[in-house]
Amino acid sequence: MGIIVQKFGGSSIANINRIKRVARRVVETKKQGHKVVVVVSALGDTTDNLVKLADKITKTPSEREMDMLMSTGEQVSVALLAMAIHKIGVEAISFTGSQVGIVTDGLHTKARIMQINTNRIDQQLKKNKVVIVAGFQGITLDQDITTLGRGGSDLTAVALAKVLKADVCEIYTDVDGVYTADPRMVAAAQKLDYISYEEMLELASLGAKVLQSRSVEFANKFNIPIHVRSSFNENKGTIISKEVKAMEDVLVSGVALNNDEAKITICSVPDRPGAAAIIFKKIADEDINVDMIIQNIGRQKKADISFTVLKEDLARAMKLSRQLSKEIGAGRVLKDENIAKLSVVGIGMRAHSGVAAKMFDCMAKAKINIQMISTSEIKISCVIDPKQAKKAVTQLHKDFGLAQKR
Amino acid sequence: MGIIVQKFGGSSIANINRIKRVARRVVETKKQGHKVVVVVSALGDTTDNLVKLADKITKTPSEREMDMLMSTGEQVSVALLAMAIHKIGVEAISFTGSQVGIVTDGLHTKARIMQINTNRIDQQLKKNKVVIVAGFQGITLDQDITTLGRGGSDLTAVALAKVLKADVCEIYTDVDGVYTADPRMVAAAQKLDYISYEEMLELASLGAKVLQSRSVEFANKFNIPIHVRSSFNENKGTIISKEVKAMEDVLVSGVALNNDEAKITICSVPDRPGAAAIIFKKIADEDINVDMIIQNIGRQKKADISFTVLKEDLARAMKLSRQLSKEIGAGRVLKDENIAKLSVVGIGMRAHSGVAAKMFDCMAKAKINIQMISTSEIKISCVIDPKQAKKAVTQLHKDFGLAQKR
Repeated sequence: MGIIVQKFGGSSIANINRIKRVARRVVETKKQGHKVVVVVSALGDTTDNLVKLADKITKTPSEREMDMLMSTGEQVSVALLAMAIHKIGVEAISFTGSQVGIVTDGLHTKARIMQINTNRIDQQLKKNKVVIVAGFQGITLDQDITTLGRGGSDLTAVALAKVLKADVCEIYTDVDGVYTADPRMVAAAQKLDYISYEEMLELASLGAKVLQSRSVEFANKFNIPIHVRSSFNENKGTIISKEVKAMEDVLVSGVALNNDEAKITICSVPDRPGAAAIIFKKIADEDINVDMIIQNIGRQKKADISFTVLKEDLARAMKLSRQLSKEIGAGRVLKDENIAKLSVVGIGMRAHSGVAAKMFDCMAKAKINIQMISTSEIKISCVIDPKQAKKAVTQLHKDFGLAQKR
Repeated sequence: MGIIVQKFGGSSIANINRIKRVARRVVETKKQGHKVVVVVSALGDTTDNLVKLADKITKTPSEREMDMLMSTGEQVSVALLAMAIHKIGVEAISFTGSQVGIVTDGLHTKARIMQINTNRIDQQLKKNKVVIVAGFQGITLDQDITTLGRGGSDLTAVALAKVLKADVCEIYTDVDGVYTADPRMVAAAQKLDYISYEEMLELASLGAKVLQSRSVEFANKFNIPIHVRSSFNENKGTIISKEVKAMEDVLVSGVALNNDEAKITICSVPDRPGAAAIIFKKIADEDINVDMIIQNIGRQKKADISFTVLKEDLARAMKLSRQLSKEIGAGRVLKDENIAKLSVVGIGMRAHSGVAAKMFDCMAKAKINIQMISTSEIKISCVIDPKQAKKAVTQLHKDFGLAQKR
């Protein structure tokens, strides 16, 4: 039997009873004959509480000290989980990121894993112990504690699965898996048994908050199968893996909605070569990610350029856009936070044409106005009025046949 | 200017405002031209809360995992204090026990410091930074996190003062220093400006809860001056140092009261050689510390043997005593938890005789019955009825002239 890496997030270990349940689950897996490596996040709202403490001291904490502070959350979790497993009578040992040799670069609060030394884990697995590793954290070669940024514990789990050559990386969460749409919005949403890395990447970046993109990218690069499943029941979840032939027969895997973006419009941009280049170069220089872009050619050689950014970057992007507008002799700068981005995702699009047409047709039937459009090889996104979002998601979900059990 | 080590306990950093105050205090010291190394404990009741969490999972947690859990408390403190010092505009950097190279043996929850590598601290002091070190914790050569037991942060501070060749180790606490008696009991109690290590050792073990014995022993061994002072005002506190000539002129430095012990009496022990040896050998084998011992020769070659142990060891000691009584053919075993131990301490006793006589005379005048007596070179202790303790302390304090300002 091989190695299984199991990752439990904050909601799975939000209180003592849940920690005990996770312990039983881990022990069950071990008793089935697997070697088990467990990765855990901080308990419930520990992370938020630590951020609040720091916030009361300074609004601009040093990132090194934030990492020092935040990394305690996972350290508490691993110790408590080890105790809970001991209590069942099974041997277990906990490690911090530092102890297990998760070496990162020095980019505090969003460090990248450089290497993982598996010696300590291998030793303990050989002694037949459950190994529990603090997620989200690592250490630089200079022994400074780092954290991996949002979703960092998923990344720890997938990276460990890779270096340990694990059979599978199980990500336990509070939902049953990846769905064809958000089940809170679309009652007919179906759990997917399989999804490809690429589809998951599009869905993750589109706001299906099951897994962070970095861990999926990593799994894709090294072909690590991920099993996303619920920590509250025994159901099979969704396997994320390489594209398989069967997937291509499914035109669209899911419909995703994202409310995290806002739209900026720079009016009356002089229609001369390079104007757009200046705008988007400067915005990129400020580390602001632009998602969708459209340009409407207007009268008198002037064009309106609209683009979307994350709401959290909106203030900075607006300030910059106003400066740029002056510099290039454009007009007013408008913002619209009241937008929704709707996307259909499916690897089948590669082999089938007409998906975009079908999507637009569906929206027209439902009398929904499309403000912006962008496409990739396996995705089509539209910006619409959020008031119409639920109707749009439901309609698309139905028209693409996602409501049927598969 | 040299190095000053400053240690702040849990009550000094119990909340955000207190952390900010400690930050200002540290910065003041730095601005006076000193290099400052700060040692901090866990915030307020963090330690208690972590113990409660573990307790909800298991009554018998692994000591290794307890250390993993508990050490997070000080890690939170160092990060927050670093942020608070940054906020004032002064450079500071925090370290865990592991990062700073405090290497201990593997005796989890009560580890002993084996060595301290000063490279990282030296480097940062050279960069003119305040160095903040997590107290109470260390790491084994195998990279397991350990803690140093009760009062461990004091020990961290004194040990750092030693290896860094600091001018002084300042221990900040919630009292102004070491007093001639407990000020809550004796209104006339005076703060001592100086006290010797040996007197402090007797007072610490007698229940004057200012400093734990291990750190005083360590300071004594390496002659590190300790300045015990309040974190809530600027007053000079008490300097603990080697015996100086002036100290010998003071007959008694303080009167201490201890309510932590209980008395056990084994009745009718056969009065033959070795009986007492058997009793105290077996008790020592069980790791129970016996403090005072008396033996009353009774009639018919039988004796009653009484001794005191810590109340927390009483149950185990009683069980053992009953077994022993059967084995050696002794009689009943009695216990008395209702005792107080009263002690006068003073290095001057070495050079002056008659202190014991004066103490007994003082007790007789006050009509206080003495149940047990023990003496050391610089201490005389009596067991009395706790109801009479306040009267006894006040009388001794007065008769030995401790109420006068010095």
